[in-house]
Amino acid sequence: MADRNGTTIILLSGDFDKVFAAFILASASASAGQETTIFFTFWGLKAIQKGNLTGKGLMGRMIGLLNRGGLQRLNPSKFSFGGMGRWMFKKMMAAKGVTSLQELRQACLDLGVHFLACKMSMDVMEIRREDLIPEVEDVVGAATATKNAAASSVQYFI
Amino acid sequence: MADRNGTTIILLSGDFDKVFAAFILASASASAGQETTIFFTFWGLKAIQKGNLTGKGLMGRMIGLLNRGGLQRLNPSKFSFGGMGRWMFKKMMAAKGVTSLQELRQACLDLGVHFLACKMSMDVMEIRREDLIPEVEDVVGAATATKNAAASSVQYFI
Amino acid sequence: MADRNGTTIILLSGDFDKVFAAFILASASASAGQETTIFFTFWGLKAIQKGNLTGKGLMGRMIGLLNRGGLQRLNPSKFSFGGMGRWMFKKMMAAKGVTSLQELRQACLDLGVHFLACKMSMDVMEIRREDLIPEVEDVVGAATATKNAAASSVQYFI
Repeated sequence: MADRNGTTIILLSGDFDKVFAAFILASASASAGQETTIFFTFWGLKAIQKGNLTGKGLMGRMIGLLNRGGLQRLNPSKFSFGGMGRWMFKKMMAAKGVTSLQELRQACLDLGVHFLACKMSMDVMEIRREDLIPEVEDVVGAATATKNAAASSVQYFI
Repeated sequence: MADRNGTTIILLSGDFDKVFAAFILASASASAGQETTIFFTFWGLKAIQKGNLTGKGLMGRMIGLLNRGGLQRLNPSKFSFGGMGRWMFKKMMAAKGVTSLQELRQACLDLGVHFLACKMSMDVMEIRREDLIPEVEDVVGAATATKNAAASSVQYFI
Repeated sequence: MADRNGTTIILLSGDFDKVFAAFILASASASAGQETTIFFTFWGLKAIQKGNLTGKGLMGRMIGLLNRGGLQRLNPSKFSFGGMGRWMFKKMMAAKGVTSLQELRQACLDLGVHFLACKMSMDVMEIRREDLIPEVEDVVGAATATKNAAASSVQYFI
């Protein structure tokens, strides 16, 4: 709790638009010289998984089926229509020269944004460390996320 | 606005995963010695109601019907399937030894987290003080919640 | 990052209850003498559009169709039922003497809350400056929103 100049984002959502917003805010904060951290929890873990996610147990496999696809398959929080909302958004964003989610995620990493994954969510959803992209710095508990947030001047729960 | 060492959570959501996240963050903050407050508003009130919620007027009864069940009946923000998502989550969490929502709420209370309920939401949804668990410290307006938040170093809107 | 006494709200949601909460929090903060800003992005832009929103391109028109109606037509995040949830809420709020969204928005403006619109979202959704209410102070990027947030003591992502 020393300086309080950083930004901590707790990303629970796996919706396209919200993951997008999280990456935009994180990259903007990091660009402005702020120490920036994203703590990925629950559905937010989809944003840092490798693409296919299948737990070994029955429950994990069920969640995996519903979640399959990783960053390429996220739907917006509105207007999904079986993926049509996503298609429409991508189309519009491409037409307007807006960066894709993959590029945005890479921009965050290039700018030094810290990626932390939530241990408990991974346990519950049967996601293993090797299911996540290697750039994830650590798998931590809520206590660590909270300490990080308390040391920051800006917090977002998305 | 003296010390700014606390955490204020504004909980509008009544989704299982988000209420869960709110209780986890609150208990982690309180464990770390921070003065922690949850302001329950709109659907978030479900997390502190006694179990059955029925307003006296027609509107209150309609909302009550839709909301019936309290903390045992919250669905996750994704994959509800008429309660199946909830069942799946609980199953997985039990299998992984994760604490239930009831236990988490109790942990928050044991750790001294302050529970405040939103007066206006209660008026609109026809929820009375006696419909809420007795541990709720006070029923207050947005001005109080905002003052609390401004005096905290960490704020989450969930 | 001088004083840190303000409140910055990033409003991504266009749901009735969340827009409502954003305006309540903003007006309460401004009433308490805090410099308060709402940054409207994605679906949140619906809260400051003039009523009808139609992009010129095909994509913009599709989003426009789905979004048509402005502040009078926002549905709550739960219980939409083809607008019935909205009707129910308005009915209850009127019965309880709760201010309408339009009145709340005006109260925010009267209290000096700053309204900023997200440039990128407007580009993607083909919303023009003249589609927004004239009280919007500026159309800015995420960098400006982030700088604003970092200079505030309170941030909400809604």
